[in-house]
Amino acid sequence: DAPFALIAGPCQMESREHAMMIAEKMVSITRELGIGYVFKASFDKANRTSLKGQRGIGLEGALPVFEEIKAKFGIPVLTDVHTEEQCEAVGKICDVLQIPAFLCRQTDLLIAAAKTGRVVNVKKGQFLAPWDMKNVLAKVTESGNGNVLLTERGASFGYNTLVSDMRALPIMAETGAPVIFDATHSVQQPGGQGGSSGGERRFVETLAKAAVAVGVAGVFIETHENPDAAPSDGPNMVPLDQMPALLERLVALDRLIKSWR
Amino acid sequence: DAPFALIAGPCQMESREHAMMIAEKMVSITRELGIGYVFKASFDKANRTSLKGQRGIGLEGALPVFEEIKAKFGIPVLTDVHTEEQCEAVGKICDVLQIPAFLCRQTDLLIAAAKTGRVVNVKKGQFLAPWDMKNVLAKVTESGNGNVLLTERGASFGYNTLVSDMRALPIMAETGAPVIFDATHSVQQPGGQGGSSGGERRFVETLAKAAVAVGVAGVFIETHENPDAAPSDGPNMVPLDQMPALLERLVALDRLIKSWR
Amino acid sequence: DAPFALIAGPCQMESREHAMMIAEKMVSITRELGIGYVFKASFDKANRTSLKGQRGIGLEGALPVFEEIKAKFGIPVLTDVHTEEQCEAVGKICDVLQIPAFLCRQTDLLIAAAKTGRVVNVKKGQFLAPWDMKNVLAKVTESGNGNVLLTERGASFGYNTLVSDMRALPIMAETGAPVIFDATHSVQQPGGQGGSSGGERRFVETLAKAAVAVGVAGVFIETHENPDAAPSDGPNMVPLDQMPALLERLVALDRLIKSWR
Amino acid sequence: DAPFALIAGPCQMESREHAMMIAEKMVSITRELGIGYVFKASFDKANRTSLKGQRGIGLEGALPVFEEIKAKFGIPVLTDVHTEEQCEAVGKICDVLQIPAFLCRQTDLLIAAAKTGRVVNVKKGQFLAPWDMKNVLAKVTESGNGNVLLTERGASFGYNTLVSDMRALPIMAETGAPVIFDATHSVQQPGGQGGSSGGERRFVETLAKAAVAVGVAGVFIETHENPDAAPSDGPNMVPLDQMPALLERLVALDRLIKSWR
Repeated sequence: DAPFALIAGPCQMESREHAMMIAEKMVSITRELGIGYVFKASFDKANRTSLKGQRGIGLEGALPVFEEIKAKFGIPVLTDVHTEEQCEAVGKICDVLQIPAFLCRQTDLLIAAAKTGRVVNVKKGQFLAPWDMKNVLAKVTESGNGNVLLTERGASFGYNTLVSDMRALPIMAETGAPVIFDATHSVQQPGGQGGSSGGERRFVETLAKAAVAVGVAGVFIETHENPDAAPSDGPNMVPLDQMPALLERLVALDRLIKSWR
Repeated sequence: DAPFALIAGPCQMESREHAMMIAEKMVSITRELGIGYVFKASFDKANRTSLKGQRGIGLEGALPVFEEIKAKFGIPVLTDVHTEEQCEAVGKICDVLQIPAFLCRQTDLLIAAAKTGRVVNVKKGQFLAPWDMKNVLAKVTESGNGNVLLTERGASFGYNTLVSDMRALPIMAETGAPVIFDATHSVQQPGGQGGSSGGERRFVETLAKAAVAVGVAGVFIETHENPDAAPSDGPNMVPLDQMPALLERLVALDRLIKSWR
Repeated sequence: DAPFALIAGPCQMESREHAMMIAEKMVSITRELGIGYVFKASFDKANRTSLKGQRGIGLEGALPVFEEIKAKFGIPVLTDVHTEEQCEAVGKICDVLQIPAFLCRQTDLLIAAAKTGRVVNVKKGQFLAPWDMKNVLAKVTESGNGNVLLTERGASFGYNTLVSDMRALPIMAETGAPVIFDATHSVQQPGGQGGSSGGERRFVETLAKAAVAVGVAGVFIETHENPDAAPSDGPNMVPLDQMPALLERLVALDRLIKSWR
Repeated sequence: DAPFALIAGPCQMESREHAMMIAEKMVSITRELGIGYVFKASFDKANRTSLKGQRGIGLEGALPVFEEIKAKFGIPVLTDVHTEEQCEAVGKICDVLQIPAFLCRQTDLLIAAAKTGRVVNVKKGQFLAPWDMKNVLAKVTESGNGNVLLTERGASFGYNTLVSDMRALPIMAETGAPVIFDATHSVQQPGGQGGSSGGERRFVETLAKAAVAVGVAGVFIETHENPDAAPSDGPNMVPLDQMPALLERLVALDRLIKSWR
């Protein structure tokens, strides 16, 4: 029943300067609101719709920046891993290793992430029922790591569309793992723009409010100072200057519903 | 931005005494909470899964009871209509005529309901996209009746399952019509028990909280003093004695989110 | 294991001349192919997307034409009914009363259709699992009429899209009722054109071949000499002059697979 | 318009003897039927529902067996790859590298498979629209490998259920790539048995017939002499002794529909 923590940052780590700028802003916003903050950025977008999509600055480029962010701001950092090999390197620096939704059933990746001893945040596959995440969770815990987060990010609903089933939040919470709601990818329209995925940013607030009212341990929101110019997930990211107002509302909702427990 | 109104009552009008008892309790609860209340009951369950399902006391039996409830408690009453013929008779007494989800595209029924001049509450079909409700709405308004409510009650999601897409609420609200969230039928499992429909009562609060946090004009909840003994929709109905606590929470959420406008 | 019968005709009965023309062509085509033929036309499109959609020539206009078609060609005729009242009148002339998919759970309509003693063809609702059609079937047979056809016409798959689950054909056949595949409405895109439904005619042959290869008692295909000028379902109808080639293929498939029993 | 080729074998390579036995039987069956045959087996089940699920004999154990099968029977062999590293080793021996559905958007894996110069068979993700496979295909062809197969294996349809959309076959064929229908995994019920996936073997023939009637370049069917004792996908596999009758029918359907081109 602690206040929700925020996982936020740009979709991609675009550069050291950009990452530091976003981290600084988000640290300041979340301190003011009194909520925990985890910086998030991807060093590689491994499943872009098209080969032409930009993939990011890579593992070697990103790790020193994560290190600097941790040192400078004293906050935990999260990034996603796509192969067993990446886990060890990422685990040396990052506090949370995130398993992408498409990869949530890849046993070796889950085990390799587990072995780092870091927190593992598994995104629920768009093809998976919420009650089946207990099997995914068990792959990590049975590998000796009990620090697992489960993230809802939408379920396949016909073609090129996701739907957020709010019942998934209490169902996954029954496992005992903290549950995160990813308000950014839940509004994605997979493949919806032909050569890239679309999204409906206007529903980020809608779905985030719904999820917080239901009750979550964390909220995941990608943000950018100019989303329409971002190299990936632009249609889903919240403009940085709109984050304070959005978060203020989510914090108020969270406080209210957690006062009832 | 007025507080949400509650549409509530038993699934079926079982008897005069039963209806009066529920109405009295709900009037008392909602007055205390300072929210509007519309009594709901069905006089006929016209699409039971099986012929063996009980269908209710019928139009002639129900109308005098609706009349008595209006007179005694000074509250509006709602019931659902299934044929054009019923509209006129129901329209003489009931304040709101509700169009069942399966029938939401039946033009003649919509027109007949519109012609009564009463408020028409159209439930969105489980097979319909939220943006297509503007066409349904137009059938009523173009028939000269601008008093239309649109109700979300879940969308087909594979077999025997519904999912509540919270984006549907703001999408339908763009039409200008007040939007209601039906937390009872949204947790239905259509045909899920072989000869009757199942449901998951435990998610009524989950989905109602989510919808209220997103913002609605009304909430629809069926209730019964002993749901497991009720002749229909038992698995989805909220026990009467749990309504005060549930509504208190929804009212608090509603106040909070409407304070932001 | 008899050859499949064809239910075909224009979506709407547009005029006596038009209906007679289509019937004559289809009688000639199906005689040549040696398959049974049932003429189909709707006298009223009761659930158009918009009030502006044309609804047809009405019951009084249509019944004499159905009578003339039966007399002239010696073939059975089918039309859809939307209210209990229509059943009796339609049942005096038409050989098959069809229950629209949206109405497949309306008990009184099913009973009224059953009481005519005519064959009742129930379309499976887009919101219904195939195994739940046994409950729908029972409503008719328990009303004293064992002549029931069950028709597959697509299941809701996200918004504005249907999907044809070929497993539904053997599942419904387990009830013992002859199963029809409606290749026209299965390619519909409900509400897909804003003010009207869209469709993808190019997939009629795809889905019809698949269904016939699985095994069906009948195939339902709407046809028109100029579909793009038709008042309804134009995007889904097969041009009349393409029917012989399409049916020839379906008949060959049907013969092959039925030779295995 | 060549006859369809069959990709078949056990889900897992259980042992050298077992693989040789299945290969021998299938070679004999397919030679008699005059269709091409590709032996399939997995050396590692990388995404079992549970850690307790058996994973297979591993890459080192499997490659010599594939080599022996190629040498002894003169047939191509197929296996699935899960990491970039595996591609090179597998590509030295196997004729077809298969990309699992969950991994169909992992760019590096697609590129690594492409670089081997071998045929790449990409299974369409359960979360992907058929028209979006052109982007997946382009990742391989733009990496210099034009030998790509696209496989349909079902789309997410609510929870724990897949549906086979037969329209996906012609849609994917428009890319120019040969299209395969996987009749085994299309009847899977993902996660449907709690700790493992279920399936409905009785629909393998239903869906395979439908797909062949629509038109495919290949059919994928897993088989086992005793499916209920198999370490994985047992509920979906066809008993080996039922393969001749099933394939005979599919070949007859295929010949018929390809005679029309």
